[in-house]
Amino acid sequence: MTVTVALAGGVGAAKLLRGLCRIVSPRNLLIIGNTGDDLEVYGLHISPDLDIVMYTLAGVVDESKGWGIKKDTYHVLRMLRRLGFETWFRLGDRDLATHIIRTHLLMEGATLSEVTAQLCEKFGVKTRLVPMTDQKVRTKIVSGNQIIDFQEYLVKNEMKNEVADVLFQGADDARPALGIIEALSQADRIIVCPSNPILSIGPMLAIPEIRKAILQRKAESVAISPIIAGKTLKGPADKILLSMGYEASVLGVAKYYTGLVDRVIIDRVDAAQKVRIEKLGLKVTVADTVMKTIEDSVDLARVVLGST
Amino acid sequence: MTVTVALAGGVGAAKLLRGLCRIVSPRNLLIIGNTGDDLEVYGLHISPDLDIVMYTLAGVVDESKGWGIKKDTYHVLRMLRRLGFETWFRLGDRDLATHIIRTHLLMEGATLSEVTAQLCEKFGVKTRLVPMTDQKVRTKIVSGNQIIDFQEYLVKNEMKNEVADVLFQGADDARPALGIIEALSQADRIIVCPSNPILSIGPMLAIPEIRKAILQRKAESVAISPIIAGKTLKGPADKILLSMGYEASVLGVAKYYTGLVDRVIIDRVDAAQKVRIEKLGLKVTVADTVMKTIEDSVDLARVVLGST
Repeated sequence: MTVTVALAGGVGAAKLLRGLCRIVSPRNLLIIGNTGDDLEVYGLHISPDLDIVMYTLAGVVDESKGWGIKKDTYHVLRMLRRLGFETWFRLGDRDLATHIIRTHLLMEGATLSEVTAQLCEKFGVKTRLVPMTDQKVRTKIVSGNQIIDFQEYLVKNEMKNEVADVLFQGADDARPALGIIEALSQADRIIVCPSNPILSIGPMLAIPEIRKAILQRKAESVAISPIIAGKTLKGPADKILLSMGYEASVLGVAKYYTGLVDRVIIDRVDAAQKVRIEKLGLKVTVADTVMKTIEDSVDLARVVLGST
Repeated sequence: MTVTVALAGGVGAAKLLRGLCRIVSPRNLLIIGNTGDDLEVYGLHISPDLDIVMYTLAGVVDESKGWGIKKDTYHVLRMLRRLGFETWFRLGDRDLATHIIRTHLLMEGATLSEVTAQLCEKFGVKTRLVPMTDQKVRTKIVSGNQIIDFQEYLVKNEMKNEVADVLFQGADDARPALGIIEALSQADRIIVCPSNPILSIGPMLAIPEIRKAILQRKAESVAISPIIAGKTLKGPADKILLSMGYEASVLGVAKYYTGLVDRVIIDRVDAAQKVRIEKLGLKVTVADTVMKTIEDSVDLARVVLGST
């Protein structure tokens, strides 16, 4: 029995995980989800990355967008707009059920881990999905002399701000959620999903105990590059890597993960960079990393499992 | 300038008030709303009677039901049911926008009065609608050895429980919301809307300062009987009157309001009871009290205003 721990951001991670869940028993897999993107909208606690993973594994995700629930409607949101409230964060009606329940259970005193477990059970997701922490960590974008909430940067401002720095407020004092350190230290395999290294995986690595557990791992750790030919399929990973002083390339990704991973999986189009990454002391696997169909996801998951 | 204060429950009250608002300037009318029916569903604060009045005055109420927003959909609720949560309290998608905002503002520290004023403004309702108190008062039904939440009795159990007693938990210690006592003591006219005397008006009368202000009024006070020919048009007023030892008749209503009103308006079908009510020392006006159209509402409002 091989125990696998996966560090997951949003859409890219979910696509790999839906493949992984087809070939790995739920008992042997723990997914750690990013909560640096979490936000409150009208007092509702929203965990975008946890939900993307949960909805994807439940088979209810809106595949055209990669997030939200398929065939969702927007009656609540339209009413809120009509009443004069801000509605830049697109919340579907069915999606809102999740946020209402999450907020309710949190208000009743449950931890985010407990709530996530309960929601996963309701959605029929058998694999354990655990938020990186039950405490509040918030990713912030420093742009000029402004500090911008992450979702405001991503959704409202459509990633147009120049990024001078990224902060993970609260991470220094955050404890990993129950079970994470035990899982990381006992795991045979750690998978860093193809997510934004800085914005999605970064918040987890900013939690001291998580970083330390990964640095001191006995498991083989493998990262799948979210950068293909210098670009991301979705989101601002390329721009953010550049802003933070990394190349927007598989090499930049590899450098960012130095000490934290043993192997990097890069796309065939980046095969020429293999040697440069190996010079960093990392193993490299070249594969097809673009996941359009569930078969693509299963294929890449097999590569990931086979590589360690 | 005649200042009018109206005590309002739900559907019956709203129907009279939509007529009253056509002929009385918003400046000269204050509506006190019942909040004994308030409840929390999935952590959302719901004020059914305030919303019925607000939606009706805003012209968005679902007229076929008398509550909720017209042409509403139930996508959030269906999702909640699918996830295994109780959904006996029917919350429409557009209606949910109200509850989400109310809960959010309350959590941020606003009083229910402030929230209600803000919601009314958003919905374009110019008449002042004030909850009877900003504190928590909850109407409970005593049935056998059970104490049942009001909405559970009304909606979930469809009023099937035998009612031994009605409690207004918290009323003894509740202070009227800001402005209520001033309005009651300065009013020229107090209108007790055609609502359930015990369940809808009762919670207000259970707040000591409100009862005292009405008992000591300088205004003429007039109640419109919600009972017509021994029956209610909607809700359990007839059954509850009987349970609490009153006749289910206009006379029972008049007796319940003894000392609190100077006049009772009864339907033509009950004209024969006029003399019996007058023997209680009350004035009686006989009128058409069934309001089907807005014209019916305006006509009855004119009778109410003309009678004092």
